[in-house]
Amino acid sequence: MTTPIEYAHANGATFRQQLHDLIRIPSVSTDSQYAGDVRRAADWLAAELKRIGMENVAVMPTAGHPVVYADWLHAGADKPTVLIYGHYDVQPADKVKDNWTSEPFEPIERDGFIYARGSSDDKGQAYIHVKAAEAYLKTEGKLPVNVKFILEGEEEIGSKNLQDFLKTYAAMLKADVAVISDTGMTSADQPEITRSLRGLTYMELNVTASSKDLHSGGYGGAIPNPALILAQMVAKLHNPDNSIAVPGFYDKVRPLTDADRSEIAKLALPDSEYLNITGAPGMWGEAAYTADERIVARPTLEINGLLSGWTGEGAKTVLPCKAMAKISCRLVADQEPVEIYELVKAYIAQIAPPNVHAELKLINAGDPASIDPTLPVMQAAVRAYERGWGKAPLYSRTGGSIPVVADFKRILNVNTVMLGFGLNTDGAHGPDEHYSIDMFHKGIDTAIYYLEEVAK
Amino acid sequence: MTTPIEYAHANGATFRQQLHDLIRIPSVSTDSQYAGDVRRAADWLAAELKRIGMENVAVMPTAGHPVVYADWLHAGADKPTVLIYGHYDVQPADKVKDNWTSEPFEPIERDGFIYARGSSDDKGQAYIHVKAAEAYLKTEGKLPVNVKFILEGEEEIGSKNLQDFLKTYAAMLKADVAVISDTGMTSADQPEITRSLRGLTYMELNVTASSKDLHSGGYGGAIPNPALILAQMVAKLHNPDNSIAVPGFYDKVRPLTDADRSEIAKLALPDSEYLNITGAPGMWGEAAYTADERIVARPTLEINGLLSGWTGEGAKTVLPCKAMAKISCRLVADQEPVEIYELVKAYIAQIAPPNVHAELKLINAGDPASIDPTLPVMQAAVRAYERGWGKAPLYSRTGGSIPVVADFKRILNVNTVMLGFGLNTDGAHGPDEHYSIDMFHKGIDTAIYYLEEVAK
Repeated sequence: MTTPIEYAHANGATFRQQLHDLIRIPSVSTDSQYAGDVRRAADWLAAELKRIGMENVAVMPTAGHPVVYADWLHAGADKPTVLIYGHYDVQPADKVKDNWTSEPFEPIERDGFIYARGSSDDKGQAYIHVKAAEAYLKTEGKLPVNVKFILEGEEEIGSKNLQDFLKTYAAMLKADVAVISDTGMTSADQPEITRSLRGLTYMELNVTASSKDLHSGGYGGAIPNPALILAQMVAKLHNPDNSIAVPGFYDKVRPLTDADRSEIAKLALPDSEYLNITGAPGMWGEAAYTADERIVARPTLEINGLLSGWTGEGAKTVLPCKAMAKISCRLVADQEPVEIYELVKAYIAQIAPPNVHAELKLINAGDPASIDPTLPVMQAAVRAYERGWGKAPLYSRTGGSIPVVADFKRILNVNTVMLGFGLNTDGAHGPDEHYSIDMFHKGIDTAIYYLEEVAK
Repeated sequence: MTTPIEYAHANGATFRQQLHDLIRIPSVSTDSQYAGDVRRAADWLAAELKRIGMENVAVMPTAGHPVVYADWLHAGADKPTVLIYGHYDVQPADKVKDNWTSEPFEPIERDGFIYARGSSDDKGQAYIHVKAAEAYLKTEGKLPVNVKFILEGEEEIGSKNLQDFLKTYAAMLKADVAVISDTGMTSADQPEITRSLRGLTYMELNVTASSKDLHSGGYGGAIPNPALILAQMVAKLHNPDNSIAVPGFYDKVRPLTDADRSEIAKLALPDSEYLNITGAPGMWGEAAYTADERIVARPTLEINGLLSGWTGEGAKTVLPCKAMAKISCRLVADQEPVEIYELVKAYIAQIAPPNVHAELKLINAGDPASIDPTLPVMQAAVRAYERGWGKAPLYSRTGGSIPVVADFKRILNVNTVMLGFGLNTDGAHGPDEHYSIDMFHKGIDTAIYYLEEVAK
């Protein structure tokens, strides 16, 4: 009889073509004009889960984009239930504006990688688990454990409606462990299991002065310039040592222990490698911490966007009436995202001069999260990686944010094992996002092994 | 026999419909996709000048947009030659993005104003002189002085090719006085003659770090953020007292005399009026000077635009690879625009941290200019306004820039009389630009009187 692994290997090319079909649907959740495509991606996944033999498949409505649910619960009451989470929505991408080499929603396989928006984050990684389930169901006719899929369409906009969904369907979603593949490794040869994630507070700052744009010759020098004042306010968000100047920002940050620092150092890259990967002329950040410590274990405050006045070609001598900055903080334990928003808001109110209106809106918020590596569900993951990669995994921490991990713990009381099958260099959220074909196939093997190991 | 004034009054409605036709051509010189429309506006004006009886009409090519030339030189050698300059190109305008009440290129007459891009700056004002010439030619069959028209299509992009044009055609353009109507008055009831203009240095600052956009969770805190660093650099362009921090910036600025200050005070608005006009919550600028002094007689440094990273709806956790600011300085005598660019550039190089690339480009430059009010050609203007408005004009200074005034002096050795027929509240360069119908008609009368007065 064909084993699940053999089935996965025999059908590798087909699996990739199916993934291409999913990627071609531009399910951009951050832009309302793509709402129909987001729905189309949900329907596509529901049909696929039904086809492979999952049961109770449903595209379940939320106040925003739907959640795709499916289960298979015939492994027996003595077997654990694994809740597999992924997201089918993606970040925006524009070939010309963002300077992609090929069309972001037309996947192309080039030099061992699939180039497309969502190839790694998270369609490619989420789909690995669909294919692992298919490999069991099409060969053995059953799964080694009970499995529930929950695939959401709002991860890139802060999983706004997922908490309500988890609360409403807590009984249906009851599980012994949650599994997420939405993280990256430093090196393709060295598997990693993520044991901590940063939280996120994403905000928008709007500074306005006059009721409409003015002629800079007629009013400049007398009427406040929101672009200038916004820049002056942004410049006050950090101290000269690049630490964050918002009062109280660091109050709840857990200091790094020597053990933390040595664990982080095992997977750390030298600055030269960061410069090589990014092309930046130099590093930036808090001098008292290494680059990896700053990325995975220290909070940050970044400017994600700026917009004001004339941004086209050439000159327009306008005195803008408004200026906007997108500002986000990555948070570490035990920072609370809404409290951070309140702190930043209070500081903005304090530094905003009285001759402008300054408003800070909260766009979304997610808690930081961590998991104990000694838990049996984590040890099962260690064994799965050893079998899938032929090498013991290291424990890593990621600078990114998956707020659902904290939500699973708080609402469903379930721990999450992060089986990351991406690479940190995949270019998630940026142009030319790509996913290693080799990682995709090794990921399916490892996901198959994980279901077997966690059943023990 | 019908007098020119009677002709202008009898044909007022027709004149406005003709102006509407000119305005409907979106001759936006700052955006290359409108190049065809810029050309169309030139052709329209050439046909119109031919129709009213001007001679030697030509659409003359430059390295950029063409110059429309026409003359009528039969007044006799004892009569002066008046060179009438205007520009038929306009600033960009987008109904939705810039929040216009009506379509910017579909003129609408509402409450005594013509609402449209270019209605005031400068199609409406330039067209006044075409109608004044028509009024003479269609009634008396001649003009009281020799007249040359020069209407350019690149004023809004810094008259890039006009200097070369003036040099090449200096003999053809020989004149005793130049006339420009491209300035505004404070009040519709009180005519003003502008006696000084500020210069302009328009620049673009680009700050780049990584070679492409990165995930803020994966690289933020370690790789420089150009949006943040650009904001920090912009914040260093002014001192805490709102003066400009660029070393050497004020070295050549002529100090204001008591006479200057009292002349400026005659037309000055109280701060409360500026706040009322603009809707701003407060004033801004150098505390040692009044608002009007800051606008017309002090140099400024404004941020005209900002662009970086994600500027759409909602959240994108991107670490941008680049950030851009449009920066312009308004200059006063005796500052030199290219020297100012060099000073800002040197300062930018000094404040740019080594972990980014920072580049400051010069977009365009124009000299400040002034004219002596005791000159006979200025006194003729005083009499023309007295007849057109029934009130003696005041001398004003404007915060705007018309670099061609300095070019006329330097290249053609001709003084320029600025017969401003706009209002400072016309909203030039902003949304809902509008032009007073009453000012348009009074302007035509005054332009008719000016030709008669300057002939004396």
